[in-house]
Amino acid sequence: MILDKKLVDNDLLNKKLKIGIVGGTGYTGVELLRLLASHPNAEVVAVTSRGDAGMPVAEMFPSLRGYIDVAFSDPESANLSACDIVFFATPHGVAMNQTPSLLASGTKVIDLAADFRLQDTVAFEQWYNMPHSCPDVLKNAVYGIPELNRAHIKTANVIANPGCYPTTVLLGLAPLLDKKLIDFSAPIIADSKSGVSGAGRKASVGTLFAEASDNMKAYGLAGHRHHPEIDAQLKQLAGNDLQFIFVPHLIPMIRGMLSTIYIKLTDGAKQVDLQALYEQRYAKEYFVDILPQGGLPETRSVRGSNHLRIALQMQTNGYLTVVVVQDNLVKGAAGQAVQNMNVMFGLEEKSGLNVVPLMP
Amino acid sequence: MILDKKLVDNDLLNKKLKIGIVGGTGYTGVELLRLLASHPNAEVVAVTSRGDAGMPVAEMFPSLRGYIDVAFSDPESANLSACDIVFFATPHGVAMNQTPSLLASGTKVIDLAADFRLQDTVAFEQWYNMPHSCPDVLKNAVYGIPELNRAHIKTANVIANPGCYPTTVLLGLAPLLDKKLIDFSAPIIADSKSGVSGAGRKASVGTLFAEASDNMKAYGLAGHRHHPEIDAQLKQLAGNDLQFIFVPHLIPMIRGMLSTIYIKLTDGAKQVDLQALYEQRYAKEYFVDILPQGGLPETRSVRGSNHLRIALQMQTNGYLTVVVVQDNLVKGAAGQAVQNMNVMFGLEEKSGLNVVPLMP
Amino acid sequence: MILDKKLVDNDLLNKKLKIGIVGGTGYTGVELLRLLASHPNAEVVAVTSRGDAGMPVAEMFPSLRGYIDVAFSDPESANLSACDIVFFATPHGVAMNQTPSLLASGTKVIDLAADFRLQDTVAFEQWYNMPHSCPDVLKNAVYGIPELNRAHIKTANVIANPGCYPTTVLLGLAPLLDKKLIDFSAPIIADSKSGVSGAGRKASVGTLFAEASDNMKAYGLAGHRHHPEIDAQLKQLAGNDLQFIFVPHLIPMIRGMLSTIYIKLTDGAKQVDLQALYEQRYAKEYFVDILPQGGLPETRSVRGSNHLRIALQMQTNGYLTVVVVQDNLVKGAAGQAVQNMNVMFGLEEKSGLNVVPLMP
Amino acid sequence: MILDKKLVDNDLLNKKLKIGIVGGTGYTGVELLRLLASHPNAEVVAVTSRGDAGMPVAEMFPSLRGYIDVAFSDPESANLSACDIVFFATPHGVAMNQTPSLLASGTKVIDLAADFRLQDTVAFEQWYNMPHSCPDVLKNAVYGIPELNRAHIKTANVIANPGCYPTTVLLGLAPLLDKKLIDFSAPIIADSKSGVSGAGRKASVGTLFAEASDNMKAYGLAGHRHHPEIDAQLKQLAGNDLQFIFVPHLIPMIRGMLSTIYIKLTDGAKQVDLQALYEQRYAKEYFVDILPQGGLPETRSVRGSNHLRIALQMQTNGYLTVVVVQDNLVKGAAGQAVQNMNVMFGLEEKSGLNVVPLMP
Repeated sequence: MILDKKLVDNDLLNKKLKIGIVGGTGYTGVELLRLLASHPNAEVVAVTSRGDAGMPVAEMFPSLRGYIDVAFSDPESANLSACDIVFFATPHGVAMNQTPSLLASGTKVIDLAADFRLQDTVAFEQWYNMPHSCPDVLKNAVYGIPELNRAHIKTANVIANPGCYPTTVLLGLAPLLDKKLIDFSAPIIADSKSGVSGAGRKASVGTLFAEASDNMKAYGLAGHRHHPEIDAQLKQLAGNDLQFIFVPHLIPMIRGMLSTIYIKLTDGAKQVDLQALYEQRYAKEYFVDILPQGGLPETRSVRGSNHLRIALQMQTNGYLTVVVVQDNLVKGAAGQAVQNMNVMFGLEEKSGLNVVPLMP
Repeated sequence: MILDKKLVDNDLLNKKLKIGIVGGTGYTGVELLRLLASHPNAEVVAVTSRGDAGMPVAEMFPSLRGYIDVAFSDPESANLSACDIVFFATPHGVAMNQTPSLLASGTKVIDLAADFRLQDTVAFEQWYNMPHSCPDVLKNAVYGIPELNRAHIKTANVIANPGCYPTTVLLGLAPLLDKKLIDFSAPIIADSKSGVSGAGRKASVGTLFAEASDNMKAYGLAGHRHHPEIDAQLKQLAGNDLQFIFVPHLIPMIRGMLSTIYIKLTDGAKQVDLQALYEQRYAKEYFVDILPQGGLPETRSVRGSNHLRIALQMQTNGYLTVVVVQDNLVKGAAGQAVQNMNVMFGLEEKSGLNVVPLMP
Repeated sequence: MILDKKLVDNDLLNKKLKIGIVGGTGYTGVELLRLLASHPNAEVVAVTSRGDAGMPVAEMFPSLRGYIDVAFSDPESANLSACDIVFFATPHGVAMNQTPSLLASGTKVIDLAADFRLQDTVAFEQWYNMPHSCPDVLKNAVYGIPELNRAHIKTANVIANPGCYPTTVLLGLAPLLDKKLIDFSAPIIADSKSGVSGAGRKASVGTLFAEASDNMKAYGLAGHRHHPEIDAQLKQLAGNDLQFIFVPHLIPMIRGMLSTIYIKLTDGAKQVDLQALYEQRYAKEYFVDILPQGGLPETRSVRGSNHLRIALQMQTNGYLTVVVVQDNLVKGAAGQAVQNMNVMFGLEEKSGLNVVPLMP
Repeated sequence: MILDKKLVDNDLLNKKLKIGIVGGTGYTGVELLRLLASHPNAEVVAVTSRGDAGMPVAEMFPSLRGYIDVAFSDPESANLSACDIVFFATPHGVAMNQTPSLLASGTKVIDLAADFRLQDTVAFEQWYNMPHSCPDVLKNAVYGIPELNRAHIKTANVIANPGCYPTTVLLGLAPLLDKKLIDFSAPIIADSKSGVSGAGRKASVGTLFAEASDNMKAYGLAGHRHHPEIDAQLKQLAGNDLQFIFVPHLIPMIRGMLSTIYIKLTDGAKQVDLQALYEQRYAKEYFVDILPQGGLPETRSVRGSNHLRIALQMQTNGYLTVVVVQDNLVKGAAGQAVQNMNVMFGLEEKSGLNVVPLMP
């Protein structure tokens, strides 16, 4: 991570992007609003919610009083095609239905759900229980982690904003995969832990405070939708087949995600200074921070911010543990989406993302 | 509170009471099951749930694996009239519909909802938006706080198990009201704080972990259903009109309730040793504990138990602060219900309630 | 609260203030650093800590990696008198010893501890167990709540940054006190609730996670240091004697403070539209927000921000309840200190404080 | 787990064991007191604490008011050698100094610290930074997990009560190790998560509420003291060399521990019904519960109880995930100690441990 003393906002571009948010009542929606409220080039012109049309956004979310003065609008009446860019913070399946017509109007799209994450439409249908409605658009959609494929994002019209878990695993392993330092005779194991906001803002018994507090559990052992997403991206980064085991856990915290990744190194890797490798790989990446040897990242060290921190620890016998933390709603969702938007429109990449982590 | 070194269970009565629980899927229902599982005279023969009939109770609540081996049954097919006693852990309005026929079969009833709490049926209809369906039964229902009206509970067939907040306020003020030590020219003010389980186990956005954690709020300022209940009971204990202000707050903890009560003392009260008054009033009450002068009760000191602790603090100018803590699901609900059952059937009052508070 | 769509930083003043922070390892210290990191006119040149001199600040607080690149320095070697302003985020008693010499060098001082909060040195000695070392400086110190005495702050050299609890009570009652609408025949009662960070970042059994989590308690019933501070300020605002009862509570949340204040209104107040009164009183105050009638402020609605929100609720019989929320570390401490600095140096008052509350 | 409907306490043995607890002010100490308070054959005669001698135990721990009426005593004046058994709930190094003389008096010892956990005294000195003071006693000490070595515990005079993490891993893997179903060409990986009470009740910044709440982290990556303990026990159960990777994590909950264990199965294991294997292995063990296929244990399902639950999930490619939950203070510490005591003295194994888990 490079040191940034100034934090001055970008003033190169004076124009404001007209922005629409479809599905503004969930956690990724309100998080987009929080970040865009202080983005110098953003003007949120429409936030849709079928059920809450007419209600001022800041009435539902008093934290935004004084920052956001639009009201929710009905999806039908919101003139989304007049936007420069539309974010979908909706359940899976919504974005793919509306994206073709938005593209036709010259509006770019960032989908925070899964509609454009899996290039394999058979896998998509299997995991999301619906056929893909626009495979042609899907082909040109770009999986949006700027640190891994910034060049493609720059020219993309549709971004598949990655899942929260995938972001940690992919950024955590990319330097090793680039250099072919993982021995694929053993599976890659990601033991991931997420705060409860990852389950979304929908009424549900399982995520009630009295159920989820002072409690933890593994879940999705028999199969989690982020498994095929990570698996496909890992294979692409590796240029290789590989096996991947993924166990997510629900942790009693609002935000925060930590993945502990166990991999077997190749014999060749033993000659490599892995700490230096990671530091160099991400030296120019503002949002990716490699902790010094022996450092142990805590989730609160990134709370509310778009930073992601990585620590490495050699284990016995040629195994390496990679620990990665991020805020699941920021770098794991809305922050990365804003970062993708900045890349797509040639804005300074950290515009709107100058938020110092909240600690304690 | 009297010291009880032995904690041996009552073995005077060898017979088992046949017990039915209507509405066993909420927090008061599962709490009744936890307590009754170790009650020497209890046999839970039916736990009803319309939606979950057939599912073993311990499948929904794995904490009960090995302790409860019945399955949920359909309310219609459960033979509740064969029970000695039926607990209603249901939404308001259910108990009053079923109670008359149960009474006709000789089955006693304890309602953990509000159907029998307000003797004033006009007030009931106003606060609960439904007419009372059995005012005659209501007349004979007994408001069940054993420390305040044990004699009536002994002979009752229908118990109105008090609300959680009322239990703290009424036990907190009874010694003063008994002795006419409160100056009613100022209102009694109860600033109460409750853990989130008080809101029940129903899917709801407002009590999601990500909403209720690391957060607190006042609620019900414009009117809470426990206000008329407390108000009526206070007036009855006082034998006097009085004014009562009640503001409940939601606190990010699973269980636990703390009421801070502000009252103006009469001039006469200034001659009274209030600490001694409270200690004497509750000297024989196993579940009510007066902390030594200067003690400050914490909610965790009663976690999981039927104890309620009280501390007194004189303020400037003749005001007294009474701080009361209880576990809202135990002394505030299911524990008090079991205590009432014990009184009704002549069992040892603490049977099934020998649970040492869980700390930390 | 006025709507601020632009959030553009002040660029009138290009000069950077040289800032020193004495005692940078506690929560108010690190919070100052978080806020000043994005303040366009701030340059933190020294952060002292006797025990940690030499350690980079961002090593102790990884949330500041990339934002703060100074190391802790020894108080002796830090050239604080070269600063434009020095913040004391220290235990009580430190600031008053160093302030006279700093003033002599032309350095202004903001003390976040209590050294300059009580003008009555006898009361100070009684509550803080130490004589006041510079009563002359104390006389000219200004109690710093910009919304109440901005004019004096502008010209002050020493600011007593208020306690967290006092800020809620004073801003919550000022409109009523201004207009003489409180009937002082009854005491003002403030039932206040604070997150655990208010207890500071010092090793202590009582504030361990396993002690303070899933638990709450009243404390300080027999006397809390903020009592005389609030009492003195209330009397000054009232121009009147009055009685004040204050009971603070510890709530299991990191940040956040909520005060529920109970007051008896004068007969005259019954003709007044109190909602309108509050809205007008604070109409030009960016950081004070009056919620619409019926609104209930939650602490998370201000998490991480310098906003303070107020709601009013009439009670029976001429009593009014005022509910006030703030982030205890921001408007209750470091944020208000930065706001005071901005006022003192003629900067835009919200510079460095453009942080949208973090929700969820 | 066998179903136990009666929960009647053992009355075979009417005698009371005289019990001493050395170090009664920490979490394992107070947890012993909670459990022993309702143990029909236990009489706690001494609870020592050098710093708090003379203070009633229930003054420090108000949750024990009415249950425990002894005061802390000075270790020197407590007549521990008159006890039948002494529990050490002390820092490492205390038990080994006092055990030889207690044994000489005929007093049995259960050490909840690590003094007798590692038979390899070189490893002990390396990990605990002190030489072992009584290697002869160590040789005869028995590692106390009743489900694994009940026979040896029955005749032991000194029990090494296992670490919390080791209990989960060893009970989680014992059925596979017994049957030689693990392929040791890959390391056994235990990714373990613990509530904060595991860090003990000592003043420390790192485990303050404001540090540990809404936050999680890995720790001890470079080496945790439970690593050599688990490693040695695994090798003994396996009768084989093997590699073991262990990463503990700190989770914001008071109690509770979950270990997610990843192992490579032998080819032979693919023919085995592992679910049935586990169910049979633990069929007679009251405290070990194998969840049905597809079940996912939550830590709250064992809160406050001595139960430990296990779930199995096959992964791709011959890997198995074993998820184990327990209450770290009960089955992971004090509960297991009481269970060991019961075995040593021929009491019913679940005496004093009839606590239904607290949910929610």
